[in-house]
Amino acid sequence: MKKKILIGPSSFGKTNNKPILELRKKGFEVVNNPFGRKFTKKETVELLEENVVGLIAGLETLDSDVLSGSKLKVISRVGSGISNVDLDSLKKNNIKLHSIPEGPVNSVAELTVGMIISLLKKTYEMNETMHQLVWKRVIGNEVKGKNILIIGYGRIGKKVANILSSFEANILLVDPYINIDDVPKNFKLFTLEEAIPIADLITIHVNSEQCIIGKNEFAQMKKGSIICNASRGGVVSETSLVKALKEGIISSAWIDAFVNEPYQGEMSEYKEIILTPHIASYTIECRESMEKIAVENLLNEL
Amino acid sequence: MKKKILIGPSSFGKTNNKPILELRKKGFEVVNNPFGRKFTKKETVELLEENVVGLIAGLETLDSDVLSGSKLKVISRVGSGISNVDLDSLKKNNIKLHSIPEGPVNSVAELTVGMIISLLKKTYEMNETMHQLVWKRVIGNEVKGKNILIIGYGRIGKKVANILSSFEANILLVDPYINIDDVPKNFKLFTLEEAIPIADLITIHVNSEQCIIGKNEFAQMKKGSIICNASRGGVVSETSLVKALKEGIISSAWIDAFVNEPYQGEMSEYKEIILTPHIASYTIECRESMEKIAVENLLNEL
Repeated sequence: MKKKILIGPSSFGKTNNKPILELRKKGFEVVNNPFGRKFTKKETVELLEENVVGLIAGLETLDSDVLSGSKLKVISRVGSGISNVDLDSLKKNNIKLHSIPEGPVNSVAELTVGMIISLLKKTYEMNETMHQLVWKRVIGNEVKGKNILIIGYGRIGKKVANILSSFEANILLVDPYINIDDVPKNFKLFTLEEAIPIADLITIHVNSEQCIIGKNEFAQMKKGSIICNASRGGVVSETSLVKALKEGIISSAWIDAFVNEPYQGEMSEYKEIILTPHIASYTIECRESMEKIAVENLLNEL
Repeated sequence: MKKKILIGPSSFGKTNNKPILELRKKGFEVVNNPFGRKFTKKETVELLEENVVGLIAGLETLDSDVLSGSKLKVISRVGSGISNVDLDSLKKNNIKLHSIPEGPVNSVAELTVGMIISLLKKTYEMNETMHQLVWKRVIGNEVKGKNILIIGYGRIGKKVANILSSFEANILLVDPYINIDDVPKNFKLFTLEEAIPIADLITIHVNSEQCIIGKNEFAQMKKGSIICNASRGGVVSETSLVKALKEGIISSAWIDAFVNEPYQGEMSEYKEIILTPHIASYTIECRESMEKIAVENLLNEL
C-alpha cells in the first residue's frame, strides 16, 4: 500500500497543480482536503490514518491529541508561522517540522509600500468621488522626506525599510530585539516613546499579538499621522484607532489584520480607514512559491 | 513706483508664503490672482500693466495678443509644460522663459508605483466590500517578475523604471526618441508592436496628446492586462478602454488625465477603473518646491 501525504490547506494546488504531481511522481498517494475549509481536530485525527507519513499543513491545530497517535514523519507548513503546532509533541513523536519564513515577505512588503503611497496621496477618497461624478482634487504628500516608523525589523520590516529608502523616506525603527549594529547607517533605531511623536506614518510588522499602539501611544502622535497594520489584529487597538481618527489625531489608516475575522466592526464606517480582508500575502506568486517549497521541504525529509 | 510681479496660479503661496515674502524682500510689489481661477486673455492683458516686469505663470494663454503690449522681462512657469506660451512672441518681445521640468517628477512617479501595486493587489475592490461588511478575499499578484511596459522614457518614465526595478519587475521600454545606448542593461527597448503582447501592465509617461493606445493596441494585449495613464488625456482612447474592459482584455486601469476635465464620462461606471482628478503631481511638496524654484528663476533674471 502506498504511503500517503495529507494536504491541509483547501486552496493547495488550485492555481498550479505541479506540487501535487511532484508528490505523486515520487510514489505517494495524495489525500486532498475533502472539506474545503480548515480541519477540526477530530477530522485531522481521522485523516491522519496509518499510511499518512507527511502533512502539508495550513493552520490546523496540531497538538498532542492530534499527533500522538499518528505515523507522521514530517509536517511541512505552507506559510511562515508555526503557532498552530505544539513543539513538545513533535519532539515526543519524532516528527520533523518545516515552515517558510521568507514566504510572505515580498507580497506583504510590496503591498505595504503601495498602501503608504495611496494613503499619503488620498487616492481612495478621490476614486470614490470620481465615481460619483464629483471632480474634487485633494492635495497629497510625497513619501520622499517623510518620517516613516517601522515597528518590527524582521524579514518583512527589513524589506519595507529597504524599498522605502529607495523613495528617500527617513526610516525610523523600533524593535527591542535588534542590536544597533544590525541597523544600516541610513536607518535610525529608537524606543517607541521617542519615535511616536516624530513619525509621520507608522507601519507595524511584528509577530506578537500584544497591543503596541493603544490610547497612550495615539495620544503622543503627531496630528495627522497615518497608521498601517498588516501584521496581527491585536497590535493596534481598534477602539483607540477610531477614537484617534474622530479626534483628528490620525488622518487615515490601513488595516489588513483584525482581532475578529471576518471583520464587521466599527472601522468599516470610516472611509479614511482603508480595509482589506487579511490579504497582504495573498498573491498567486506567494501561494505558488510556498506550495512548491512546502513540497520540496517535505520530500527532502522522506 | 515699485516694479510689480504678477502671480497667475490662484493656489500660489497658499501652503507656504515664503516665495511671496522673498519677492517683496527684493523690492517688488506682488499682484496676486484676484479671480481664484485661471485668467482669461483679456484679464491677463489688463493685469500686465506698465509696471509688471515679471509673471509667475500657471496655464494662462500667453500669446502675441497678451505679450506684445506688455513690459514683461521674464515669465517663470510654476510647472514643467510650456504649451501655453507662444515662443515666437517671447523672442519678438525679448521676454525670457523659465519652467521646471523636474518639478512634478517625484510625485507622479511615486503615485504611479503606488497605483501599480494597488491594481495588482485589487485593494480598491476589497476596500469597498469591506466597508459593506463583506469579507471577500481576492487573490492578487506581485510586482516582482511582472513585465511592466513604460511608454515614454523621459524624466518621469525613468524615475518610474528605476523605482520598479527595485521591486524586481522586468522593465520594458517604448520610446521612439531614445537611443538604445541610453537604456540601462537591465531594461529592454522595444517597438510598441513588439512590447504590447508581452506586457502585463502598461504605464504611459509622454508629453504628446496623440492617441497611443487605441482599438488596435488593445486588440494585441495579453488577456487581463492593466493600463495606467497619468500623462495626457488623449493618449489612451477612453472608448476603447471601456470596450477592452467589457471584453475582458484588460482587468483594470488607473486614469488620472482625461480628454475633458472635469471628467464625467462612462469610465466612472466601472469600479475596475480607478479614477483620480488629475492629481498625480498635486502634493504639498511638489507645489512648494515648484513655487520656490519659480521665484528663484524669476529673480535670477531680473
